[in-house]
Amino acid sequence: MWYYNQLTKTLNVQYPIIQAGMAGSTTPELVASVSNKGALGTIGAGYMSAEKLEEEIQSVQSLTSKPFGVNLFVPGHNDYSPQQVEHMNAWLKPYRRALNLEEPTVNITEEQQFMNAIDIVIKHQVPACCFTFGIPEQNIIKKLKQANIILVGTATTVEEAVENERAGMDVVVAQGSEAGGHRGSFLPHPQQQQALIGTMSLVPQMVDHVSIPVVAAGGIMDGRGIVASLVLGAQGVQMGTAFLTAKESGANSVVKQTILNSVETDTVVTNVFSGKFARGVNNDFVKEMNQYDGEILPYPVQNQLTNSIRKSAASNGNKEWTHIWSGQSPRLATAQHVDQLMDNLVKQVKDLVGIMA
Amino acid sequence: MWYYNQLTKTLNVQYPIIQAGMAGSTTPELVASVSNKGALGTIGAGYMSAEKLEEEIQSVQSLTSKPFGVNLFVPGHNDYSPQQVEHMNAWLKPYRRALNLEEPTVNITEEQQFMNAIDIVIKHQVPACCFTFGIPEQNIIKKLKQANIILVGTATTVEEAVENERAGMDVVVAQGSEAGGHRGSFLPHPQQQQALIGTMSLVPQMVDHVSIPVVAAGGIMDGRGIVASLVLGAQGVQMGTAFLTAKESGANSVVKQTILNSVETDTVVTNVFSGKFARGVNNDFVKEMNQYDGEILPYPVQNQLTNSIRKSAASNGNKEWTHIWSGQSPRLATAQHVDQLMDNLVKQVKDLVGIMA
Repeated sequence: MWYYNQLTKTLNVQYPIIQAGMAGSTTPELVASVSNKGALGTIGAGYMSAEKLEEEIQSVQSLTSKPFGVNLFVPGHNDYSPQQVEHMNAWLKPYRRALNLEEPTVNITEEQQFMNAIDIVIKHQVPACCFTFGIPEQNIIKKLKQANIILVGTATTVEEAVENERAGMDVVVAQGSEAGGHRGSFLPHPQQQQALIGTMSLVPQMVDHVSIPVVAAGGIMDGRGIVASLVLGAQGVQMGTAFLTAKESGANSVVKQTILNSVETDTVVTNVFSGKFARGVNNDFVKEMNQYDGEILPYPVQNQLTNSIRKSAASNGNKEWTHIWSGQSPRLATAQHVDQLMDNLVKQVKDLVGIMA
Repeated sequence: MWYYNQLTKTLNVQYPIIQAGMAGSTTPELVASVSNKGALGTIGAGYMSAEKLEEEIQSVQSLTSKPFGVNLFVPGHNDYSPQQVEHMNAWLKPYRRALNLEEPTVNITEEQQFMNAIDIVIKHQVPACCFTFGIPEQNIIKKLKQANIILVGTATTVEEAVENERAGMDVVVAQGSEAGGHRGSFLPHPQQQQALIGTMSLVPQMVDHVSIPVVAAGGIMDGRGIVASLVLGAQGVQMGTAFLTAKESGANSVVKQTILNSVETDTVVTNVFSGKFARGVNNDFVKEMNQYDGEILPYPVQNQLTNSIRKSAASNGNKEWTHIWSGQSPRLATAQHVDQLMDNLVKQVKDLVGIMA
């Protein structure tokens, strides 16, 4: 059977499909629906407070008894000066004025938030904990392992995958350049730029260098992408954009509609929204902020400074001033319920495997 | 059978594998060996004079009776001023001085060279003619079709593939962002930058929008990449880097060795060598010339200005001052004879198809 392998055994799921933990866009309904259909739903907890995370976990647990995950952002270092914040606030003023918004106060609580999240994940016995932007320290990994929580890391290069395996991750996601949303890169790139390795290149090279199951991510939207990933040596796939436009996703309707109307050439990789590089649909905010290229603040400062602008724009139906994360396959996006989407994926895979035979 | 489809029927080959027409690096031995093993060998004629092309075709024909192709660069417009050439010559002076080289004279004969090549292809009844950088005009397409020559176009976006089909191409290559060497892009990109769509995203979206066979290219180095491409809906693959390091390839040994020693993060997309964007291993020449970003001349002017520097550096074993085209999967490159490489590819595909069954 195409779905019986080390990954499904490790995650204790039927199908080797992970719904990406899209911070800010998952709902308990989305996560539970995915898990109930035999894949791994994931709470995108990157921006969540302890209270919110606890609430979300309990909601998911009330909707499913199947395994699910929580995706967390590993805190990093962020050097910045009050002067830089002042500059950025000046550039953002026109947007705030147009939307009638106050200037926010920067408040970095990343580290504490992350530690709280780990404790909550353990307390509520969340089956899987996924990490983006790096690898947590050994004491955290040990704590989670003692609680029998499965650990899923993210890597954008072979070297990052090797580091994930060495640190004790049970599974590693190979995030190809096609992927929408934040790039999970955490090691310095030799070319002083982003590591943007296509999924077709990344997966086989990564598979050859680690022993833990590799999960392919980036551009995968249907049965073709799933089977292709398995053929490349991945044991499963992680899909973001495909679930972001699902009925149960928490993404704003202007975000969903924009993705559904986009084509493969519409996305760019930009750090202007959050301070970390991410792939999304190009728009006026990106183009205008690109003028201040050297002045973009590190995550999470830039994220906090642009947050209310993006939220307000999205709720006003303004797709030009909010982040619209999408991978490079928006032509394959659909507006289905998770149940339909999952049924279709499984059927497509079955048919394709049948043809290959 | 995995290899019996519209593409192999159209090209009249046994296996749906095209050896990319790598300008400057193919030899009659490489092309004929590939064709003799049942795939489509291709003469990389992008830079060849009429005499050289005629000689190469005759050499290939003396070594094989199987179908092969010729890859041509479709001429474009190139606006530049003598002042710009003067500037570029100033930036290139240190390299020329170090290598003891004269300043070349710019001599644009693209259009004439292309027309001559078409006539030669027809005269010698070359079975397939492949195009990079665009689509030839209708009178040329008609002439080739009347001579029963199979036409293969290159596309880096869905729109470019649709244009290829509309113009009468029999086959279109989907060149993903992972691909080494020149980007075949020819339509203006909406984001004012390069269209770099990963193979995993590009192939299924392209397949959904054209009826002619799609050939996947970019990051494909072994049986895994071939089967994955077929699963995505391609009818075959085009492989460049995999054949560039083969024993029969004409690439300089310093080029081959550098690719064999590279990893997936070592390549960049740059226009400093030829004036057209291409993917290759990053080196000192790229880094230094990036300072003059806005002053790079269009193809073929930049190509002519840097030509002797690159040739001289390569023959001196200097990998820092020559172009080392490579896709994003150099970890999968091998130094085999074409016969071994082809036998391994076919065996890997057979095994993989067997596992899927």
